[in-house]
Amino acid sequence: MSLGAGGGRDEIEALIALMARLPGLGPRSARRAVLHLLRRREGQMAPLAAALARVAETARDCPVCGNIAVGGTCEICENPARATGEICVVEDVADLWAMERGGAFKGRYHVLGGTLSALDAVGPEELGIPRLVERVQAEHVTEVILALNATVEGQTTAHYIAEALERTGASVTSLAQGVPIGGELDYLDDGTISAALRARRAL
Amino acid sequence: MSLGAGGGRDEIEALIALMARLPGLGPRSARRAVLHLLRRREGQMAPLAAALARVAETARDCPVCGNIAVGGTCEICENPARATGEICVVEDVADLWAMERGGAFKGRYHVLGGTLSALDAVGPEELGIPRLVERVQAEHVTEVILALNATVEGQTTAHYIAEALERTGASVTSLAQGVPIGGELDYLDDGTISAALRARRAL
Ligand SMILES: [Zn+2]
Ligand SMILES: [Zn+2]
Repeated sequence: MSLGAGGGRDEIEALIALMARLPGLGPRSARRAVLHLLRRREGQMAPLAAALARVAETARDCPVCGNIAVGGTCEICENPARATGEICVVEDVADLWAMERGGAFKGRYHVLGGTLSALDAVGPEELGIPRLVERVQAEHVTEVILALNATVEGQTTAHYIAEALERTGASVTSLAQGVPIGGELDYLDDGTISAALRARRAL
Repeated sequence: MSLGAGGGRDEIEALIALMARLPGLGPRSARRAVLHLLRRREGQMAPLAAALARVAETARDCPVCGNIAVGGTCEICENPARATGEICVVEDVADLWAMERGGAFKGRYHVLGGTLSALDAVGPEELGIPRLVERVQAEHVTEVILALNATVEGQTTAHYIAEALERTGASVTSLAQGVPIGGELDYLDDGTISAALRARRAL
């Protein structure tokens, strides 16, 4: 789709194309969003540009848990109030955020960054599972809570991790029934997540 | 809604809040969009930041027609191939873009930036209507095409402009039936807009 008009045409078209790559925005809604910003260049467009630049510049993956961090390790890994004996394994940073909104979990995390997939050549190494096993041993972790999505891929990955952790002696639990079949954590309300956490069961 | 976790928490929350102000994105989809970008910091987030900054810095309102421009007057006003004798009046830059996508109009524009509204204290002055009348006289414009939305506000504004232009001697036309009742130009397909333009009628 061509913008078809206007000064700075190439730059505005490039901006629309970049916006259209965001989830939930297509070419049409990206164009509307850019137009919205063009009408609010000082109040919204410039601040958004600055906020994006700042985060793009400073955000890193936490080398310990895989959460988003600024500089070194993330705020959760650096927080002495977070229990070191419990690790919650999530597929994705979005799921970590969802767990934190629930507010019921006080331990640390391991962010897999995906699920096992032969098709996409995603193995245990890519998900940091050997690193998780080492960490469970080194940090004397007593419980690993698998908070993976209730999808086939999530549950396959959960079973692989449970087996990999067997020799560590840590108890491996998973979120209780309460996560709907086929449901994705990030779409659940905070109460459901808290309830599922409280009723977690041994795997 | 709190982000609840992660390094750079304040900066990421600020970014999510800014994204949530875009049309079509709520707090939840803004969070997903930011997460999407956090995973693609070099490939997408930094380029988007740069594109926004560049446009926010350079885009201006064309002093002649109200279109978006870089620096002085817009590309349409500066294009000698565009007929000077015809002006198409639109409510909004989005409508100008929609007209241009249709590709049937070869003249110039006047962007009102809204419609007459006693409630919102938007009068002829705010819409640049006196400036439009002057321009019609100074540029010897022979036809003014009113391409306003088929809403009550759009049609009220169209009639006001038609009266204001009466003494200029320019013929005032409007887009033909073909624009659905209550419809907004920006949502129409290009063919409908072209057909409505070709079948335009005197007001
Ligand atoms: Zn961390
Ligand atoms: Zn112009």
